[in-house]
Amino acid sequence: MADHTVKAFDEDITRLRGLIAEMGGLAEVAIQEALDAMVRGDEELGDSVVARDKKIDALETEVDKLAVRIIALRAPMADDLREVIAALKIAGVVERIGDYSKNIAKRVHMIEGRDRFEPLTLLPAMGDLAGEMVHDVLTAYAARDPGLAREVIATDAKVDAFYNSIFRNLVSHMVENPATISSAAQLLFVARNLERIGDHATNVAEMVHFAATGSYPPEEDRL
Amino acid sequence: MADHTVKAFDEDITRLRGLIAEMGGLAEVAIQEALDAMVRGDEELGDSVVARDKKIDALETEVDKLAVRIIALRAPMADDLREVIAALKIAGVVERIGDYSKNIAKRVHMIEGRDRFEPLTLLPAMGDLAGEMVHDVLTAYAARDPGLAREVIATDAKVDAFYNSIFRNLVSHMVENPATISSAAQLLFVARNLERIGDHATNVAEMVHFAATGSYPPEEDRL
Repeated sequence: MADHTVKAFDEDITRLRGLIAEMGGLAEVAIQEALDAMVRGDEELGDSVVARDKKIDALETEVDKLAVRIIALRAPMADDLREVIAALKIAGVVERIGDYSKNIAKRVHMIEGRDRFEPLTLLPAMGDLAGEMVHDVLTAYAARDPGLAREVIATDAKVDAFYNSIFRNLVSHMVENPATISSAAQLLFVARNLERIGDHATNVAEMVHFAATGSYPPEEDRL
Repeated sequence: MADHTVKAFDEDITRLRGLIAEMGGLAEVAIQEALDAMVRGDEELGDSVVARDKKIDALETEVDKLAVRIIALRAPMADDLREVIAALKIAGVVERIGDYSKNIAKRVHMIEGRDRFEPLTLLPAMGDLAGEMVHDVLTAYAARDPGLAREVIATDAKVDAFYNSIFRNLVSHMVENPATISSAAQLLFVARNLERIGDHATNVAEMVHFAATGSYPPEEDRL
């Protein structure tokens, strides 16, 4: 590419990365607020998480459009093209992470007898870990840092351990309190949504690692 | 583009569409076999569904690579570029549909007391509907048929109705049979996975409709 084209391409990529960082910030806040709303039974906060998910969706559309325009106008080759395609994919995953938080927020009004559920103290801690994964993986993406990407992948095992513990806890709770089964089932889905957020952050971490090093991280990172 | 470039581009796009059709065929089979395995408790069949999901993943990687090559070599503009990007996105969604079936198949060995679960007769019917949506939306994609895409979107309401019915049924079952709560919780996730397959088929249907008509289908289709 000519020099001025290279500069224009770099500016475009910076903008693309900025949009993805913005999506990531919103997705992190959504995880935390969805769980705050869930724990406190704050339906208003839950509704605002649901409403703000549209903003994440709109940013993804913006990423898509910008990526298409970059490809059409700048005709990037090789690594540059792969970078644009990676941005498209990462934006898609962050949008899905937003959907999981929205899904948690939608369940706020479905829980009865909040104070009797021990998982309601575990879920925010699990959410903090999942949110940290999302934060770190986007930092790793911005800094092209494969080491941090591997840390994110290692953290996923902790999120999975939370999930297994909460699952067992809720099943015991159901056995002992049949009247609360419907609420407990909703909390199972909440735990499952957080577990999926961890999986998606891990997927992004693998893409970041691949983009930075040309290879996928070794399997032993995924304990 | 020069004539020979147009022809090469058309051939590439045909190949891209062929790969996506192959992914879709495998995803349909996976839904049906995962539910067969679940209903009969056939762990061997479940394992083969899990193993064959790698084939769907490999096809997605092939779509990604081919799409990047098409963009790099043919430098498609406007509608042609959007078509390639749409193929990338649709392949991503079909891959996710495969993951949901794999997730169902992984739960086959977690169900005890199969013959006492009424939902085990409802889930295959729900799976047939979800599989039909996947089949029809890929037919709509291949034929660029917005009418069929709208039918797929309308079918999603039936899948959601199945989900709600199975959810209520399982919660009642849990209340009446506390000893089976753990198995019932697994079946909740199975129903949820099928419901998500319907959602993803709907997303593809919206993309197909948009690609064919330039507008998203009216909201009343999504009853």
